[in-house]
Amino acid sequence: MTQQINQETAGTEQWHSLAQQLRIDSIRSSTGAGSGHPTSSMSAADLLAVLLSKYLRYDFDHPENPNNDHLIFSKGHASPLLYSVYKAAGAISDEELMTFREFGSRLQGHPTPQIPWVDVATGSLGQGLPIGVGVALAGKYLDRLPYRVWVLCGDSEMAEGSMWEAFQHAAFYKLDNLTAILDMNRLGQTRETMDGWHGDHYAARAEAFGWHAVQIDGHDPEQIDQAYAEALDQPDRPTLIIAQTRKGRGVSFLEDVDGMHGKPVSEDQEQAALDELGDADNLLVEVRKPDPGSGENFTAGLTGALNLPTWEVGDEEATRGAYGAALKALGGAREDVVALDGEVSNSTKSEEFAEEYPDRYFEMFISEQQLVSAAVGMSVRHRVPFASSFAAFFTRAYDFIRMAAISRANIRLSGSHAGVSIGEDGPSQMALEDIAMMRAVHGSTVLQPCDANQAAKLVAEMAERDGIVFLRTLRPKTPVIYDPSEDFSIGGSKTVRSSDDDAATVIASGITVHEAIKAADELKESGIPIRIIDAYSIKPIDGDTLREAARATGGKVVAVEDHWPEGGLGEAVLSALSEEADALHFEHLAVGIMPGSGSSAELLDAAGISSHHIVDAVRKLAND
Amino acid sequence: MTQQINQETAGTEQWHSLAQQLRIDSIRSSTGAGSGHPTSSMSAADLLAVLLSKYLRYDFDHPENPNNDHLIFSKGHASPLLYSVYKAAGAISDEELMTFREFGSRLQGHPTPQIPWVDVATGSLGQGLPIGVGVALAGKYLDRLPYRVWVLCGDSEMAEGSMWEAFQHAAFYKLDNLTAILDMNRLGQTRETMDGWHGDHYAARAEAFGWHAVQIDGHDPEQIDQAYAEALDQPDRPTLIIAQTRKGRGVSFLEDVDGMHGKPVSEDQEQAALDELGDADNLLVEVRKPDPGSGENFTAGLTGALNLPTWEVGDEEATRGAYGAALKALGGAREDVVALDGEVSNSTKSEEFAEEYPDRYFEMFISEQQLVSAAVGMSVRHRVPFASSFAAFFTRAYDFIRMAAISRANIRLSGSHAGVSIGEDGPSQMALEDIAMMRAVHGSTVLQPCDANQAAKLVAEMAERDGIVFLRTLRPKTPVIYDPSEDFSIGGSKTVRSSDDDAATVIASGITVHEAIKAADELKESGIPIRIIDAYSIKPIDGDTLREAARATGGKVVAVEDHWPEGGLGEAVLSALSEEADALHFEHLAVGIMPGSGSSAELLDAAGISSHHIVDAVRKLAND
Repeated sequence: MTQQINQETAGTEQWHSLAQQLRIDSIRSSTGAGSGHPTSSMSAADLLAVLLSKYLRYDFDHPENPNNDHLIFSKGHASPLLYSVYKAAGAISDEELMTFREFGSRLQGHPTPQIPWVDVATGSLGQGLPIGVGVALAGKYLDRLPYRVWVLCGDSEMAEGSMWEAFQHAAFYKLDNLTAILDMNRLGQTRETMDGWHGDHYAARAEAFGWHAVQIDGHDPEQIDQAYAEALDQPDRPTLIIAQTRKGRGVSFLEDVDGMHGKPVSEDQEQAALDELGDADNLLVEVRKPDPGSGENFTAGLTGALNLPTWEVGDEEATRGAYGAALKALGGAREDVVALDGEVSNSTKSEEFAEEYPDRYFEMFISEQQLVSAAVGMSVRHRVPFASSFAAFFTRAYDFIRMAAISRANIRLSGSHAGVSIGEDGPSQMALEDIAMMRAVHGSTVLQPCDANQAAKLVAEMAERDGIVFLRTLRPKTPVIYDPSEDFSIGGSKTVRSSDDDAATVIASGITVHEAIKAADELKESGIPIRIIDAYSIKPIDGDTLREAARATGGKVVAVEDHWPEGGLGEAVLSALSEEADALHFEHLAVGIMPGSGSSAELLDAAGISSHHIVDAVRKLAND
Repeated sequence: MTQQINQETAGTEQWHSLAQQLRIDSIRSSTGAGSGHPTSSMSAADLLAVLLSKYLRYDFDHPENPNNDHLIFSKGHASPLLYSVYKAAGAISDEELMTFREFGSRLQGHPTPQIPWVDVATGSLGQGLPIGVGVALAGKYLDRLPYRVWVLCGDSEMAEGSMWEAFQHAAFYKLDNLTAILDMNRLGQTRETMDGWHGDHYAARAEAFGWHAVQIDGHDPEQIDQAYAEALDQPDRPTLIIAQTRKGRGVSFLEDVDGMHGKPVSEDQEQAALDELGDADNLLVEVRKPDPGSGENFTAGLTGALNLPTWEVGDEEATRGAYGAALKALGGAREDVVALDGEVSNSTKSEEFAEEYPDRYFEMFISEQQLVSAAVGMSVRHRVPFASSFAAFFTRAYDFIRMAAISRANIRLSGSHAGVSIGEDGPSQMALEDIAMMRAVHGSTVLQPCDANQAAKLVAEMAERDGIVFLRTLRPKTPVIYDPSEDFSIGGSKTVRSSDDDAATVIASGITVHEAIKAADELKESGIPIRIIDAYSIKPIDGDTLREAARATGGKVVAVEDHWPEGGLGEAVLSALSEEADALHFEHLAVGIMPGSGSSAELLDAAGISSHHIVDAVRKLAND
């Protein structure tokens, strides 16, 4: 028989029963699957029982309601608990619960937004809280809606630096709409955590970072209730609830037993475990719905004319400068565009947006993991985030970018200071692996403009593009070669030089387009015309144009890029050309040595990707 | 005239003069270069003056002396200060100092180990301290030598989560040989840091993480002296010295002025700046040398017989299991081998080493940035570190891996749970971009064994290999297909099936080798023999064998990999084959959809990389 619980009727007894039901369902689903993390679910069952039945404001029938709270399982491996919560809320059936981890089921091993009530994929630890910071930033500063962000954290993941980035930013931005619930069950995967049950350690840290901290017995519903109430009552600061719990709570042979991480109860032992937990009362929680509201507080898409900046052919401007100017223009035409930066906005040029639209600019300081996570969080709230840093430093956030793709997040990343062309700062500041990294993200888009007009047009395209969209910009100024009237669509390319007698095709992108033009001028004097293709859209790449050019030039192709040889433009070209079986005479020019300091020209030359290397490669092919 | 300072004679007056000289040289070198970070150098000049002349123990003539202290500039952009320190120590001439940032100079924009006194490259913020933790771990637990690790940190980089990973681990491991010196100059690149001059914030955090903290005026040599003395006197805990400083200290138009980050003094203003700093006395510091010692406390290389584990053909074992067993064997034969893990040692199987050699195993908990950094730190001290985690989670440390290559570090990374073959846990746990990521690291090696004997042999090879060496292992057990007597060298491949009539070549690696074998069996029944190449060495790849196979099979080649299509085995194959101009009929099978949960077989099939997809691809080519 089904029993209803709601906010009015919930009390200690119901909370205990509900928590036991969540434990029972966590065991049943994971034993059914033959894998999963029941013990990590059982420790947090009381915490969720009280949250679900008294504090959460969520309309499971209308996950799109902007007033809904956000519940993020940063410890994504506690998915059996999350799915058991969904069942208790009446959102899924017991039958569906029992499809846990089956092929085709949306109830995957770790939560993903294939489930409509899941905001973001978790399962790589230390990501839920920084993303929660992003959602809370949107709630407080963009939506200005009273929803709350609840993040269930594991104690093992407190070792991830990204958690402390989140602690710093949440306090700095006074996110009183954010509550982190620490399921301090003491046991990690193989051993005790660094801090065990020392709740005072976590409390001291949280307080030192500017949070309110409260330590409770995580199996005492009344203490839990009190802690949530306290969290709601902290103006201008986030709260960490440190709940001392026991992994596998409620079953004698699981509770606080080391070596049980990520292990389901065997079928043989299942009944014994369930017996210890008592009868499930088939409780159904009537989760309090938020005010239905009147739709979003902002307009998506263009709300005015988009007046992109333009430059005259022959002007000099850095593509990063064009990024800044175009982003500012986009900000004027769309109120859903927001910008974030890793405290290098005067380098990436996002400062232009920041100065014009300070209410939609978020300084994320030198914390690239939090930078990307905040963008993901704002994407959850349907904003169009542009996050910028040096392209090299997005490597710091690669796990977050990878997971953002699993989250189906729509974020735009602008990475400046690409390649050896940056000059004197040296290799630590040079992105030389960013194209490989960003191409190898599911559904990603990778763009590299070579001039300012192209960069500005691509920034506008980025706003319309779903998925993970990466723009690679240059530090030095480059000549404007395209008329402001030209169009640049994602997936396209521009044929910069072309004749009927081209001896070879040179495929370039970004800075190397300009080297290719210099090479073409030199080769022309020797009577060797070449075709130059500006592959500004590296993924998707314009395979048709590349294959046609290869055919037209007898399969003689040079690819030249300011990037390591692996995974970049050259291999993208090879992949595109491999769709045709014609013989290929291929020369790949890429950065072949560890660069040092020097001028842009010296370093391009030393790396083997300057105009004279292109000339040599073409001559070699022409003589073949 | 040159004046000598040494530990005996150093005092307030000399410290002041020396600090001014360091400021003068920081300005001169960066103005000469036309770029660089003088103001970030000037704030820390007093801190370095006292350190160099009284506390540092370093023999600049013998940087290989194991007793030398380690001085790491985590704020690598303060390179003008570091190089000015080298000049003051008599290690470089003024003439060399003035080559700062010139092409070919070892005095690059950010420090790298091209300079013999630099342990590791810095310049990506938040890395020096976690690497310092690695060096200090080696000092306390491996070398057991009294050297100290001094790390100069910037206040902007305190926003990086990796710093707090370092704080946690340094305290957990009681690293009393580690001192972090925080140059709290308040100003970041574009604005004030989150904490400004609130030294109490940093002190509270450091103490909450278990450190000793001391707050001082960073321009008062006596307070600095006292702080260093205090740091030396803290048994079993590291010390953070929070030095309140002023960026650009000593020059009125630079000091505490916003907007001066990363800007050299103009040539016009240089003299005015130098005039304010007073006359440089051409001070030369006689840096105290450590005990010359009697060489290293350990033997490098093999010290005994290497008895690698073996499996019989037809046995089933996971390559991760073979990794663990082989690492244990390696540990028995070499005392310079150490292992580290990100608290998943029962998954990666490094637990086998941990159990046998607990003194050489370091648990780095769920902190992949610190995991890789500690390995880099141990490489500084000439150990042969093997760091393991899920391959997917090495994405968390990509910036550290990238920088480790610039550091010329020799580290081995073992990433388990590669690809969709892991099964039910879902995409958050699946490495599908790791090959792309690791190939695009300068000088890296990327290996993926398909059976246990091969894995074990490759683990032995890894120990002998310099640079960043990555091993990709599988979760599921796979059949042993190679006899224990077979050899597998890095850069090689194995031809698993071959005949004179092969209709096509299938190039596979790891799990897909087994799918290819199933496909070959099926195709053989239809009278279509194929060649199978096991490309276990993905970088360097065995281009000769691949090209020969392509020639032998009419250019008909299938590459099949459990990885996204970009930057992995397929593109490595295309790069190798592009060295020849023959026509190529290429089919690339890679993970083309976002996977979910399911069995290994279901997911391989859904991803389009199972045996029947290989059969289809071969049939398509055969019919071409």
